[in-house]
Amino acid sequence: MAPHGEGSDAAEEAMVAQVEKHPISSILIVIAMQTEALPVVNKFQLTENPHSPFPKGVPWVHYHGTYKDLTLNLVWPGKDSALGVDSVGTISASLVTYAAIQAFQPDLIINAGTAGGFKAKGAGIGDVFLASHVAFHDRRIPIPVFDLYGVGSRQAISTPNLLKELHLKTGKLSTGDSLDMSPHDEASITANDATVKDMEGAAVAYVSDLLKVPAIFVKAVTDIVDGEKPTAEEFLQNLASVTAALDQAVTQVINFISGKCLTEL
Amino acid sequence: MAPHGEGSDAAEEAMVAQVEKHPISSILIVIAMQTEALPVVNKFQLTENPHSPFPKGVPWVHYHGTYKDLTLNLVWPGKDSALGVDSVGTISASLVTYAAIQAFQPDLIINAGTAGGFKAKGAGIGDVFLASHVAFHDRRIPIPVFDLYGVGSRQAISTPNLLKELHLKTGKLSTGDSLDMSPHDEASITANDATVKDMEGAAVAYVSDLLKVPAIFVKAVTDIVDGEKPTAEEFLQNLASVTAALDQAVTQVINFISGKCLTEL
Repeated sequence: MAPHGEGSDAAEEAMVAQVEKHPISSILIVIAMQTEALPVVNKFQLTENPHSPFPKGVPWVHYHGTYKDLTLNLVWPGKDSALGVDSVGTISASLVTYAAIQAFQPDLIINAGTAGGFKAKGAGIGDVFLASHVAFHDRRIPIPVFDLYGVGSRQAISTPNLLKELHLKTGKLSTGDSLDMSPHDEASITANDATVKDMEGAAVAYVSDLLKVPAIFVKAVTDIVDGEKPTAEEFLQNLASVTAALDQAVTQVINFISGKCLTEL
Repeated sequence: MAPHGEGSDAAEEAMVAQVEKHPISSILIVIAMQTEALPVVNKFQLTENPHSPFPKGVPWVHYHGTYKDLTLNLVWPGKDSALGVDSVGTISASLVTYAAIQAFQPDLIINAGTAGGFKAKGAGIGDVFLASHVAFHDRRIPIPVFDLYGVGSRQAISTPNLLKELHLKTGKLSTGDSLDMSPHDEASITANDATVKDMEGAAVAYVSDLLKVPAIFVKAVTDIVDGEKPTAEEFLQNLASVTAALDQAVTQVINFISGKCLTEL
């Protein structure tokens, strides 16, 4: 994360520089939906933690394990306890990211998930994007400076080697709490110059930035927002198949990260 | 909070019944903006906690003190560290509510703040409402059950005596992350049958419900959404004067709560 003009004292800079020289050892993977999470859980043979570090009563689920030299913690916000559906969206993602950073003190966060893509910006079904920037498109506060706070634009950490090695696409990610897209959302998404649209990324970025943990955003396209088919229908049709592409990309990303420092990504 | 059809085991019910019989002793006050928070801080002579229980680096501010038989903890999410504006909206409110519940284990949450009001539903500038229900108006997920999750409608705890004694107005509260109101928002606000509109209430309700702490919502009207003046202009014009009405209502509410159990509110 590189927020707008934020200061940093010398001690903090020295600490950050030292951390950046050490290989990444602990990764937090934040995924919003069970269908997206389980392939990754299975691929890395992660096990569910029956003694979750989260408060009693919250539906958040923690899986953990080791892979090569990496400690992997994967969290998803679980099923809404009243309604039984995945706890999607920015609030659940923020809370579970906050609580997981506190519990696991990761070196790096990977927010992985499905997204809508814009064909006018080069996105196709099944494409996997690494977001270069994230921002919100449904937080309109038309008062000077509050407007920028609402948009909450943040740059993801720079990962030129990862992009080159894995041949992932890159583009800007725009986040909102609706699956559909209103005309107001569309105007903001255009202003955000977004190629992909999700319901959690900018919220995970906000918390990552707040607690100074670098984050990357791996998003696989389930539906074409500027296409012919209704979003909800296309999303549900492609969800299972596209999670296979997502799973493969996350695996490649984790393999690439293993043994490397942040500055080598 | 009374979410849709949620189960509860016998032990939990017994615990809740026991808690309800004891006078309320600890209140958490969640307020989004400094201008709204400071009059309450001054009124109750709360002091800023220099050893905040929150993680290093977060801008969240904690004030505390005692009043009569009550322990009061007041939190506001502080100024955005990059942009310097109040950290308004659902994500900051969720995070600070979560962290404050963990830290202070309150018996009751009061979410106080300013709001837009609908004159067609009986709201006028400076009116103070106690919300009967809260819901979101900018989380449209047109998939069965996910749609209900998005709206996130919750009933506030019943406070018939408080309403009667203090002559507060009551109505439904609708929450979204934009200060303005798009046509899509308007349709959802109408569906939510809302009299007042804010940027935090339903998020505080979500977290309160998640962690099983009852919450009430005290909202003072700074601007008339269905009136002539632009919202941002009217909001800024009335913010300081309306916070006086808010402050007075919060003081009355806390005086009323002192010495009472939840079931006596």
